[in-house]
Amino acid sequence: MTVLVLTCKQDVTADMVVTELHERGVPLVRLDPADLPGEVALSAEYVRGDFHGHLSTSGRLVSMCGLRSIWVRRPGTPGADVTEQTAWVTAECEQALYGVLRCTDARWMNHPDAAARARYKPWQLQAAHRSGFAVPATVITTFPKVARQFAENHQDLIVKPISGTHPTDPPMALPTTRIPPDVDFTEVAAGPTLLQQHIPKLADIRLTCVGEQMFAARKASDPGQVDGRFAENDHTWEAAEMPARIAQAVRAYMRAARLAYGAFDFAEDNEGTWWFLECNQGGQFGFIQLATGQPIAEAVATWLALDET
Amino acid sequence: MTVLVLTCKQDVTADMVVTELHERGVPLVRLDPADLPGEVALSAEYVRGDFHGHLSTSGRLVSMCGLRSIWVRRPGTPGADVTEQTAWVTAECEQALYGVLRCTDARWMNHPDAAARARYKPWQLQAAHRSGFAVPATVITTFPKVARQFAENHQDLIVKPISGTHPTDPPMALPTTRIPPDVDFTEVAAGPTLLQQHIPKLADIRLTCVGEQMFAARKASDPGQVDGRFAENDHTWEAAEMPARIAQAVRAYMRAARLAYGAFDFAEDNEGTWWFLECNQGGQFGFIQLATGQPIAEAVATWLALDET
Repeated sequence: MTVLVLTCKQDVTADMVVTELHERGVPLVRLDPADLPGEVALSAEYVRGDFHGHLSTSGRLVSMCGLRSIWVRRPGTPGADVTEQTAWVTAECEQALYGVLRCTDARWMNHPDAAARARYKPWQLQAAHRSGFAVPATVITTFPKVARQFAENHQDLIVKPISGTHPTDPPMALPTTRIPPDVDFTEVAAGPTLLQQHIPKLADIRLTCVGEQMFAARKASDPGQVDGRFAENDHTWEAAEMPARIAQAVRAYMRAARLAYGAFDFAEDNEGTWWFLECNQGGQFGFIQLATGQPIAEAVATWLALDET
Repeated sequence: MTVLVLTCKQDVTADMVVTELHERGVPLVRLDPADLPGEVALSAEYVRGDFHGHLSTSGRLVSMCGLRSIWVRRPGTPGADVTEQTAWVTAECEQALYGVLRCTDARWMNHPDAAARARYKPWQLQAAHRSGFAVPATVITTFPKVARQFAENHQDLIVKPISGTHPTDPPMALPTTRIPPDVDFTEVAAGPTLLQQHIPKLADIRLTCVGEQMFAARKASDPGQVDGRFAENDHTWEAAEMPARIAQAVRAYMRAARLAYGAFDFAEDNEGTWWFLECNQGGQFGFIQLATGQPIAEAVATWLALDET
């Protein structure tokens, strides 16, 4: 049984897992959907209820019924490398590849449906609260007066994107930004805006969950620092102890979201509370593993190699 | 409790249902997501686990917790009417609107996750077979030799798009086309191609399923006619009797797909078998209702107005 890794060519994080799988002798095929059609080819036949499919990349063939698991890491857009690329070609390639893969019995990290849902921040906030996390007060609004009222109630605020990364090429992450107290909220009417109570924090926490395994890491914060992703400081990521109620909430969240992999970001306040900021279903883990030595790639490899019968 | 209808401005099919709901005195709000931000505004607040949201259109306010059901008819793209439209604005508006609506307890026709999955034709073919429909032999391939072999095995073939409509503006449906026996399949390598055994048919069948209710309609076919959508003939749509095993298969399919609405297309062969061609989760029903008098809009209104407690 084969592991299918869907990712782009340059992906150091995927390399770590692929190396691990190779060392264990687990058969795998790595391909970039952007290479369909061309280097990547596919076929699926439906005859009297039997479904026979196979994928090929660089001439190597793998049967769809021989897929053990599918890792959707950082795949390119199907059809993206076609000379005359159109929305039509992209749609046809996307529907063919993912449509056929959806017909297999393979386990997904993460299933595209679960991944799509887990990207919605409003859904995350609700699921996080229901799972037992502390969640900072948040508003998403196009009403300037709602924004003003929220600012009066919560004083210290940050603003951040709702949809995560800026969909340019290459995608760009916008930093979370603190809002001065006298800000003019008129522009909120121009587009939905996410405002959140600012949590003064001692540290950033990144908790990576792989199946049942969890890896918590902590990076101390300088006073007043808001978005750890864009701040240079002298602190580094270190493995962290995880409160029991956090582990329980993570399990509840992963179950509700039907995710096999999730990267949780928390702000640790000066009372030791971990505030849920977001769960990125496709979040990186390479930088955490390199800094802390936590065996996350090994855990991903173990999950992908697992035989569930 | 209010019904939310998400659709574009010009939508005769939506008009039929809206009229019906008005006559029954069911509160409803109709809006086009393209008008967010602007004519459409939204707000959602998450404070200590409580979720308070509201939508407004043309100054009229509706509470998110007062939504009974959401009909995703033919909505415009969120943010589409913004003067400086970018992928970024679209993503922010899409995530805000649908993210917040996903946090409500409203019933969906159809839920976006179910709708997205139900669009994949490979998934449809597998689900159709498992539900008990007769499904024509089909192949999706980028291998010319697989296409050639399939043509030899099945002789009479058609080709049709995998992804449904051509994603231009306005979207364009491509007709299903019969393939001459001596065709050169080399070009199959240029993009995934869907080939299907051609079913010589006496009639096209359109079966519209609304919750538990089903409406079957039949339109006789001229000999050799392939795609009823693009053929002018003297026949018209008439209400049809539905075989018991078809009703059973439709129920199984709707359950597997978690759809509240589906428009099934069948080809009726000269032995009376209904061959599954596709199930369009967003298919039109106005033309069927106008031709047959079947009360489909009424059924949609009933489903949307239902109180499930």
